[in-house]
Amino acid sequence: MTTYAVPSTGGPLTLPPAALARAAELIAPALDAAVARLDPTLRGPVQHHLDGGGKRVRAALVLVSAAATGTPEEVGVPGAVAVELVHNYSLLHDDIIDGDHERRHRTTVWVEYGVGPAIVAGDALAGLALQVLLEEPTSERVRAAARLADANQAMIAGQASDMAFERRSTVTVAECLAMEEGKTGALVACATALGALLAGAPAATVGALEAYGAHLGIAFQAVDDLLGIWGEPALTGKPVGSDLLAGKKTLPVAMAMAAGGGGAEELQALLAGEMAEADVARATRLVEQCGARDEVVALADRHLAQALDALASVELAEGPRAELVAIARYVTARDR
Amino acid sequence: MTTYAVPSTGGPLTLPPAALARAAELIAPALDAAVARLDPTLRGPVQHHLDGGGKRVRAALVLVSAAATGTPEEVGVPGAVAVELVHNYSLLHDDIIDGDHERRHRTTVWVEYGVGPAIVAGDALAGLALQVLLEEPTSERVRAAARLADANQAMIAGQASDMAFERRSTVTVAECLAMEEGKTGALVACATALGALLAGAPAATVGALEAYGAHLGIAFQAVDDLLGIWGEPALTGKPVGSDLLAGKKTLPVAMAMAAGGGGAEELQALLAGEMAEADVARATRLVEQCGARDEVVALADRHLAQALDALASVELAEGPRAELVAIARYVTARDR
Repeated sequence: MTTYAVPSTGGPLTLPPAALARAAELIAPALDAAVARLDPTLRGPVQHHLDGGGKRVRAALVLVSAAATGTPEEVGVPGAVAVELVHNYSLLHDDIIDGDHERRHRTTVWVEYGVGPAIVAGDALAGLALQVLLEEPTSERVRAAARLADANQAMIAGQASDMAFERRSTVTVAECLAMEEGKTGALVACATALGALLAGAPAATVGALEAYGAHLGIAFQAVDDLLGIWGEPALTGKPVGSDLLAGKKTLPVAMAMAAGGGGAEELQALLAGEMAEADVARATRLVEQCGARDEVVALADRHLAQALDALASVELAEGPRAELVAIARYVTARDR
Repeated sequence: MTTYAVPSTGGPLTLPPAALARAAELIAPALDAAVARLDPTLRGPVQHHLDGGGKRVRAALVLVSAAATGTPEEVGVPGAVAVELVHNYSLLHDDIIDGDHERRHRTTVWVEYGVGPAIVAGDALAGLALQVLLEEPTSERVRAAARLADANQAMIAGQASDMAFERRSTVTVAECLAMEEGKTGALVACATALGALLAGAPAATVGALEAYGAHLGIAFQAVDDLLGIWGEPALTGKPVGSDLLAGKKTLPVAMAMAAGGGGAEELQALLAGEMAEADVARATRLVEQCGARDEVVALADRHLAQALDALASVELAEGPRAELVAIARYVTARDR
């Protein structure tokens, strides 16, 4: 169990909202059909990756956002499939980049099939996302495709910054936030925008849902950063302090460095070297003592609240709006 | 100098057609503008790769195809930029996959910046190609984007097959041709189709130019396969018999294996092991003795002729048509 306070805007929700399972079911036929379009040579690595599942949070955000504007969820399916494809290609490539051996309790594609097939499988999923949207080039789908292409580029920029940070001894809070807005936030904001775009919703509605997604993406990543240091290994599937062990410059670290003083210097020195268990414990304490952990908790709460405010700023269908609130609470819960 | 006959349909043309230099100049501002849209973190690796240049054959094919349908070449610029971006992302990723250290007499991006930044730089160029086409979503550009997304997928399938072949002891001629049609032919055919699509040409014209590109792509790759075994190191920048050394199952090898008998068996055994210089010479002789080399020369000639026939099958502007012929002769010349 986690020992710190849950967000003031929501309690811990260990049960995933119904929208996630519904999204998984709703997109399955279209996702299967898309993958079936791939050359047989590619299907092994791609299927190995996709069989790992995933929570389908982004797909659910597309579908429920579409429904929130008053259309049937089904209208969002091509967007939901495309967003999941982009998310999964980025995971496939990230696993190579980070040298990760496991994802979703399975071997990663590059370990199972080799780096070359994993690069190409990722390329195939990235390309497929655009094919899915452009195969019926209505003006809504074309707009969605352009929006997804932009989000993909922002995500790539975030990933590039993340890699660049590894070679630096320190990063500012602003740099770290910009990186996370790209790496995680861009695709989440795109998901909610896509639902509204595919539904042909007015610009104000698209904007409000996109703002909800953008704030949610930041809150989600901030919580992920907290779990990367203080998460229960039994829940996260990663060792205690895994992000510190990997020397990652996540938000809590950037905030601790911004606090300055001897603690920041000591933390910087620890992160620059090989860390033993005691070093990880010491680094964790340093981030706590300067108040950085509490600051990140507050930041996550603030962005969650802003996400919910954005939802309240326009007229939306009541059921889907409640589901968007539930999804937001779920993905920012500290015990997920 | 090469010792075998030049194609019956054209003599050796060591001088590149003027269309290539013109294309390089015409797309430079738009290509620079596209790259400037990338996050600064990405620009180093991307620029390192692009500074290597390249012949801009695919860009020229887009522009001259557009002109052949009666519009100014400029109409093809977004397509030419997009096709070059896709071509270059594939080279960036291929260099990682093949472990190549040099391209265009420069270190490859993964050697210079690392595998992670090279993967991400490739992803960025791939995404940028679609952004360039979709930033002004006219119906012509949307059609071009969908066409490019399909060609990209075919190219990826070809690359996946190429990798799969490396783990097999033998491939059929049909399998090898299908792989090369994907890996090389798809993007060349897409380039010529894109010029016509962006010009809003009638379907018959698009089809004829696409057929020209498809045949040209196969002829070009067949000649590339010949150069990979018999090319002059001084011209190709690669050692004698480089493709045999790498154990690649290219068209001459597939044809030699199809010839069967003791020669095919001996070749298969040689390719499966580590080859010394004498082994490469022996393998080369085996491919020659069974007539496979001559068959590939004949195949290249046949597809070049079919490419030129396709050009002759519809009404095209005379100047650009002559340039398409010149480009076809140039890229299939054995001494290029």
